[in-house]
Amino acid sequence: MLSRLSGATRIHLIVGDPIDQAKSPAGLTRVFAARGVDAVCIPMQVPAPDFDAFMAAAKRVRNIDGIVITVPHKFSASRHCETLSARARQLAAVNVMRREADGRWSGDMTDGIALVAALRAQGFEPKGRRALVVGAGGAGSAVVLALAQAGARAAVHDIDTARRDDLVRRLAAWKVAASADPAGCDLVVNATPLGMAAGGPLPVDVTRLAPGAVAADLVTMPAVTPFLMAARERGAQIVTGADMFAPQAGILADFLLSGHPTAG
Amino acid sequence: MLSRLSGATRIHLIVGDPIDQAKSPAGLTRVFAARGVDAVCIPMQVPAPDFDAFMAAAKRVRNIDGIVITVPHKFSASRHCETLSARARQLAAVNVMRREADGRWSGDMTDGIALVAALRAQGFEPKGRRALVVGAGGAGSAVVLALAQAGARAAVHDIDTARRDDLVRRLAAWKVAASADPAGCDLVVNATPLGMAAGGPLPVDVTRLAPGAVAADLVTMPAVTPFLMAARERGAQIVTGADMFAPQAGILADFLLSGHPTAG
Repeated sequence: MLSRLSGATRIHLIVGDPIDQAKSPAGLTRVFAARGVDAVCIPMQVPAPDFDAFMAAAKRVRNIDGIVITVPHKFSASRHCETLSARARQLAAVNVMRREADGRWSGDMTDGIALVAALRAQGFEPKGRRALVVGAGGAGSAVVLALAQAGARAAVHDIDTARRDDLVRRLAAWKVAASADPAGCDLVVNATPLGMAAGGPLPVDVTRLAPGAVAADLVTMPAVTPFLMAARERGAQIVTGADMFAPQAGILADFLLSGHPTAG
Repeated sequence: MLSRLSGATRIHLIVGDPIDQAKSPAGLTRVFAARGVDAVCIPMQVPAPDFDAFMAAAKRVRNIDGIVITVPHKFSASRHCETLSARARQLAAVNVMRREADGRWSGDMTDGIALVAALRAQGFEPKGRRALVVGAGGAGSAVVLALAQAGARAAVHDIDTARRDDLVRRLAAWKVAASADPAGCDLVVNATPLGMAAGGPLPVDVTRLAPGAVAADLVTMPAVTPFLMAARERGAQIVTGADMFAPQAGILADFLLSGHPTAG
């Protein structure tokens, strides 16, 4: 897909630490090629103490048009944007930045809309439904907001109750509840790392999950987590991490390819 | 050739301004693939005022293993190396840097040996021969030193006589002469931009070129420059810019793939 890499190829970065696991170098580069754009997405492993100096330098590189942000930089990256989308401002986090025609950098937080798009692709329409999101980190916060904006009644849980309460306050306009109980929910999303390592607790008490509910997980390895296995046994429909992240590259490309010279 | 680009792919940069014309993104990436190394060479257009801050940040990125340097940064890049090869120190210039196993960055200047390798590939052995290099910039300086080290009696010319005299002084151990006259030379190398634009002067007085001489040009566009055309009419053997740069990617890869974790 990159057989035409040259000095004129436009560059997008994905910045995180670690970075080996990142899907954007393959996925986003494939989307660029499919859209006929001569551009690549390149992984950059930047530890947190080096992040500010790196971003200041990268933003001045003339052939870098966009920067995807991943763990642990989604919150600190918002400070490097001259303009923020409304949702990025509400979450104080960005997962993607682009250089605008006037040279300024703008940021957006598309994790939430990508995950809601994934749920819709699996047949789940959030409007009017009750949803519980476990985990109030970058992706969890974004999915809570996107579900609320899509018309769901959203609740959030995090073992870090300060982080949970901060999110509830930040999204006060959306009346997000603080709750760990899946009873009565149409959707339960695991946005914690629970399930990546074997033998840990499940993110919710699955015995309280309604049989007709949808259980979704942002963990991609293993493909079917212990939470999803338990939910399936209870009769729930499951949505895997791979399903949840499938729309991400297309949504990132939509943002990255608008507003700079390589836009198609 | 890059179908396997992923978050784990190791990154090498080529830094210059402009960068569109750079051959390393395609050439070096192809060599990495041919050697079974999961690595790419990515173009970075960095203007001179931004160069120092960019290099300080790039050297700290954990998955960047090497940096190729091109115009106009070859001289300033030498200050960003913790160790320099003997020839890079003599020329006060580097065209390639790599992270060593101990984390320090070392620099080398391989332009000269690559160009001498190209001449040998075309059947010209420098030992004991008289050579004139026109142009005492980064590449010209490197080829003067490499020819002298290969046993040629080298002379150099530059319309900037201060730059020419500085090089002659710097390479005093090699007894490089200051001369613009191709008479009696077995080899004449154009290391100036003359010939890129139509209608300019030739780098040397071709009427004084010996019929059995070799005329080489570092200009790659046009493929056969006015200097080479005139030299061919005089009966000289010609070596084009494409011929001269053919060994570059392999020699850069030799340096980049030694001394860091992706070597091997």
